[in-house]
Amino acid sequence: MKKIAVITSGGDAPGMNACIRAIVLTAYQHGMEVIGFRHGFRGIVEDLNQPLHPNDMRLVSQRGGTILLSSRYPEFKQVSAAKAAAQVLDAHGIGALVVIGGDGSFRGAHHLNQHWYGQVIGVPGTIDNDLAGTDTTIGFTTAVDTAMEAIDRIRETAEAMARVFVIEVMGRHAGFIGLHAAIAGSAEGMLVPELEPQPKLAEIADNIKRARSAFPDSSYIVVVSENLWPGGVSQLAKELTQATGTTCHAAPLGHIQRGGRPNAQDRILSMQLGQAAVHAIIDGASGHMIGVEQGHVVEVPIHLTFERDKPLDLRLVNLQRGLQQLNFASKVGEESA
Amino acid sequence: MKKIAVITSGGDAPGMNACIRAIVLTAYQHGMEVIGFRHGFRGIVEDLNQPLHPNDMRLVSQRGGTILLSSRYPEFKQVSAAKAAAQVLDAHGIGALVVIGGDGSFRGAHHLNQHWYGQVIGVPGTIDNDLAGTDTTIGFTTAVDTAMEAIDRIRETAEAMARVFVIEVMGRHAGFIGLHAAIAGSAEGMLVPELEPQPKLAEIADNIKRARSAFPDSSYIVVVSENLWPGGVSQLAKELTQATGTTCHAAPLGHIQRGGRPNAQDRILSMQLGQAAVHAIIDGASGHMIGVEQGHVVEVPIHLTFERDKPLDLRLVNLQRGLQQLNFASKVGEESA
Amino acid sequence: MKKIAVITSGGDAPGMNACIRAIVLTAYQHGMEVIGFRHGFRGIVEDLNQPLHPNDMRLVSQRGGTILLSSRYPEFKQVSAAKAAAQVLDAHGIGALVVIGGDGSFRGAHHLNQHWYGQVIGVPGTIDNDLAGTDTTIGFTTAVDTAMEAIDRIRETAEAMARVFVIEVMGRHAGFIGLHAAIAGSAEGMLVPELEPQPKLAEIADNIKRARSAFPDSSYIVVVSENLWPGGVSQLAKELTQATGTTCHAAPLGHIQRGGRPNAQDRILSMQLGQAAVHAIIDGASGHMIGVEQGHVVEVPIHLTFERDKPLDLRLVNLQRGLQQLNFASKVGEESA
Amino acid sequence: MKKIAVITSGGDAPGMNACIRAIVLTAYQHGMEVIGFRHGFRGIVEDLNQPLHPNDMRLVSQRGGTILLSSRYPEFKQVSAAKAAAQVLDAHGIGALVVIGGDGSFRGAHHLNQHWYGQVIGVPGTIDNDLAGTDTTIGFTTAVDTAMEAIDRIRETAEAMARVFVIEVMGRHAGFIGLHAAIAGSAEGMLVPELEPQPKLAEIADNIKRARSAFPDSSYIVVVSENLWPGGVSQLAKELTQATGTTCHAAPLGHIQRGGRPNAQDRILSMQLGQAAVHAIIDGASGHMIGVEQGHVVEVPIHLTFERDKPLDLRLVNLQRGLQQLNFASKVGEESA
Repeated sequence: MKKIAVITSGGDAPGMNACIRAIVLTAYQHGMEVIGFRHGFRGIVEDLNQPLHPNDMRLVSQRGGTILLSSRYPEFKQVSAAKAAAQVLDAHGIGALVVIGGDGSFRGAHHLNQHWYGQVIGVPGTIDNDLAGTDTTIGFTTAVDTAMEAIDRIRETAEAMARVFVIEVMGRHAGFIGLHAAIAGSAEGMLVPELEPQPKLAEIADNIKRARSAFPDSSYIVVVSENLWPGGVSQLAKELTQATGTTCHAAPLGHIQRGGRPNAQDRILSMQLGQAAVHAIIDGASGHMIGVEQGHVVEVPIHLTFERDKPLDLRLVNLQRGLQQLNFASKVGEESA
Repeated sequence: MKKIAVITSGGDAPGMNACIRAIVLTAYQHGMEVIGFRHGFRGIVEDLNQPLHPNDMRLVSQRGGTILLSSRYPEFKQVSAAKAAAQVLDAHGIGALVVIGGDGSFRGAHHLNQHWYGQVIGVPGTIDNDLAGTDTTIGFTTAVDTAMEAIDRIRETAEAMARVFVIEVMGRHAGFIGLHAAIAGSAEGMLVPELEPQPKLAEIADNIKRARSAFPDSSYIVVVSENLWPGGVSQLAKELTQATGTTCHAAPLGHIQRGGRPNAQDRILSMQLGQAAVHAIIDGASGHMIGVEQGHVVEVPIHLTFERDKPLDLRLVNLQRGLQQLNFASKVGEESA
Repeated sequence: MKKIAVITSGGDAPGMNACIRAIVLTAYQHGMEVIGFRHGFRGIVEDLNQPLHPNDMRLVSQRGGTILLSSRYPEFKQVSAAKAAAQVLDAHGIGALVVIGGDGSFRGAHHLNQHWYGQVIGVPGTIDNDLAGTDTTIGFTTAVDTAMEAIDRIRETAEAMARVFVIEVMGRHAGFIGLHAAIAGSAEGMLVPELEPQPKLAEIADNIKRARSAFPDSSYIVVVSENLWPGGVSQLAKELTQATGTTCHAAPLGHIQRGGRPNAQDRILSMQLGQAAVHAIIDGASGHMIGVEQGHVVEVPIHLTFERDKPLDLRLVNLQRGLQQLNFASKVGEESA
Repeated sequence: MKKIAVITSGGDAPGMNACIRAIVLTAYQHGMEVIGFRHGFRGIVEDLNQPLHPNDMRLVSQRGGTILLSSRYPEFKQVSAAKAAAQVLDAHGIGALVVIGGDGSFRGAHHLNQHWYGQVIGVPGTIDNDLAGTDTTIGFTTAVDTAMEAIDRIRETAEAMARVFVIEVMGRHAGFIGLHAAIAGSAEGMLVPELEPQPKLAEIADNIKRARSAFPDSSYIVVVSENLWPGGVSQLAKELTQATGTTCHAAPLGHIQRGGRPNAQDRILSMQLGQAAVHAIIDGASGHMIGVEQGHVVEVPIHLTFERDKPLDLRLVNLQRGLQQLNFASKVGEESA
């Protein structure tokens, strides 16, 4: 009887547990056993194994984080580590490994695939949504909801005090959370790496000054991706304060964006991908990521997911650009009259 | 200068306000004015007009309900009502009307389109998602999140007391909320009108009895669409209690499913559709709904949206059917061994 | 070394897990072991024991429901059951039992206290807050928050459609949830058993009619305790619809009020009471409930907690009565001018 | 007919709107008019007045922030400013002013009281809870809930990655949010200004090291009040990382703690205090804050509220100190055996 192994690797993302559940249930449906390794690739190398049974899956989909724990494990780049992992997997009689993770985890999966004879399947699990070959990733929409709720909260206090806020969201080097949270939060400004790799202070400051002069009693929120501004959002807020003469407050949202119960969309996506991953294993696939494009489950060579760039949806970019300048357009219109 | 009118009609749905915001901002961007009528079609006939200005839109996207208010207005089926509405619209010099609503509202829009020379554009706003020609509708995913959160809560108490619950969700005559909430809530059973127009009590009872005998200490949740079981979910729970010998508790979720802040997905969708509705007006469209299919904004003749059936996504149906029977499969597996 | 046992009994309440954590940690701090019995008194009789260790407590405070599971167990009224329980407790060498539960559970605790030589300590755990001798009970404020959030949601849709809603909240035969949720939800009406054991339809209907005629475009919400109106809230809504000529919608909130993560107040209260319960055991107390009055932890003979009535806070009653009639007072004021 | 004025001043706090509602409704009940001034004391001086009518109060209690807007206005310390405010108040024929705010706002109220013949009443509105003479303040428990929810989220990711987090909460120079959030979040460590005005790095680091060596796979969370560690929580995390050899992550929660819908407790408290403020005005009080102590509404000379220190509840301090060291006590216990 075939044995499947599963790990969660890299930054945790809400929905990973629902994905594990679907993998375990579907595997058992097809007469296969499932073993988990705790803490990702490190857990394979160190043989931190844990049998996974349908019974253990009854109440996990609701929970954030990952019941299998995770870790970042750069040591896995070494050939010796991949070979050690292969040995452990073989010792357990495992025929296929599902890796739920992001960019770095998929590099690890690709690397392992070259040093192990078993099947390796990737499932996109990262709040950053920065994997090519899939429209969305496990945890992305929940992270956007979390960022949006934080922006909503800050909006209330910003409005009460007529303040300017510069809110930093996650995304490493991708602007997906930034773009979606900016639209959902009705932000007045947005800075994401794809659109403004080197944003100009003067331009941002001018927009703020114009809005403040037209609507001194209103809040103004700029959503900024992390890693974009040298010194981070605190530094940006400091420079903007100088440039505008108005105190600009920094609000880095930080790690709250990873946690929390997965929303319905992420749970459904996670279970779809988990089920499809097992089906792909049965079909003999290896070295592929299971993604979803335009509603359809797709299989994508895993190296393409991190070698290729994934562009922002230009229609959403235009939507935000159109709306953000219009928040204060009326006054401008009146002035020009 | 062109004037656009906008109404929200039928049951309110979270995201309608974000849609109104996008319509108003985009219209002003293109030099057009916007007038709202309160309470849907009734408000046109009774001329309950209210000018909408970008300034009023600053803090509305976050809120559930609809700032334009809504109503059900069956009287609008009469030709005289449509003509009266046309007169009011003409008196205001309105060139185009955007109707945000569902099934019944689109029938009204179609009806008006035959008695008025202006452009009529529909935007799908209903938590039920029962409109053909669009993958999703404004409010649907928020309603699923709300239903899921309620199921999560009930799961906790059901688990503590090892109880069976029959949870009724909205959907009128469509199973979209039921299907999505059942998957997201890891429900053990699901009854939706498309799949089981006449569900058999014995079958549901058998499933419950089998699960209870294998796992007497576990909760068991069946998600049921409203209007499916004669007498409602209370009657179903009563009959199941008799048939199984186990108390089955009824939990109709009711109107909480309509309210609440829209999630990020619904806000983004709402703004996309609102912006596209104004663009469609500029392009001269009329008698169409603006929908979204596989990520693309589409224009669909409005009568097709309610004349055609919209099927459930079969892959999701299979996902739930696969997973729900597996929740308790292991024990069965052991028994068969 | 002394051994403590702990059970959760009756309806589960958010915060029970935080209480268990505090009991276990505090007991270990004082060199005592803790054993849990699953499913309340039934679990003692059937010896469903489970050792509880500080390590198991690391992530439980956040969760609703009860990790020890619960049950209603009317059989425990029999002397034979109490004696059987005493035997099991003795067989484990248990010196003291903590019962986390409500009214019925405390009767059980009192009963056991008469048939067992060990110490019996009660901790008030019930969302209903219907125990004398303590200002609040574990789960009460979370249940009020949950009911309030549901009312907030219904308010949005009620406002959009200008509707009347009759919302049923839990409380068995006590109006605490009803009173607090009515204030927090800015309800226009409130019916709780302490104030209106036999509410008059005509009076409620008159209030609705007056409000509707002054503000036909506004929502109107009446909060009603369960078990108050014969036939429940659906029947009340039906009768009000007839009496007012306006459709009145029923919204029974049901079991969602039990579940959910405990709020901060309930977690803090639960840990305070759990810690104090262990301290009381060390001090030799028995047959007492650990409660909190005006910020102070108190010990109350357990039979008094269910023999005495616990009145509603009259100041809160007057607050709600003052505010609810004023929601629509201005118009009346204008009319009288 | 008497006129009352109301302002919200200083940092906004969830519940301020519910308080405004209660003031307006209660005042009208007693035949008095209410005028609001936007942006606190500045709004009086600049006469940014806005009549407040019961009708406007129908849907405000649910919302965070303050519909009257607020501001910090240090200029009000000048006698000229107080006199200017007195003149504006007199010009409107206002007989009494209600100031909803914190420490600084009450200094302003006290100052005005010396330069104006009208009555001045304070209502404690600040998330920091740092006002003597009242057990709690408007917004405090909601802020604790918000901080706790953020800690819950971070706990999930911390647990998944076995990480140490140093979480900074608000409180200016008071540890109330820190203490309550630490208990509610089951934090392993807590640093608040009242208990550790100059916390020792070595001690914190030792605790972390001991826990990590006993439980390398577990998360570890320290809650720290803002303004406590020189350089903030980022600097503390850096120093702890060096001292422990384990990466310690900084998570400043920041401004999300101010926003959000008020919880039920804060709404009820706000309405109680608002109603009592109007009653106090009718009774002729001036120069007093309306607070709540042990469930009773009290009147406290306003200068005492900021001149006296308000101590933390020692029982809660002991609760947290007892529980936090016990999170990892068992292992220590085993080692000592």
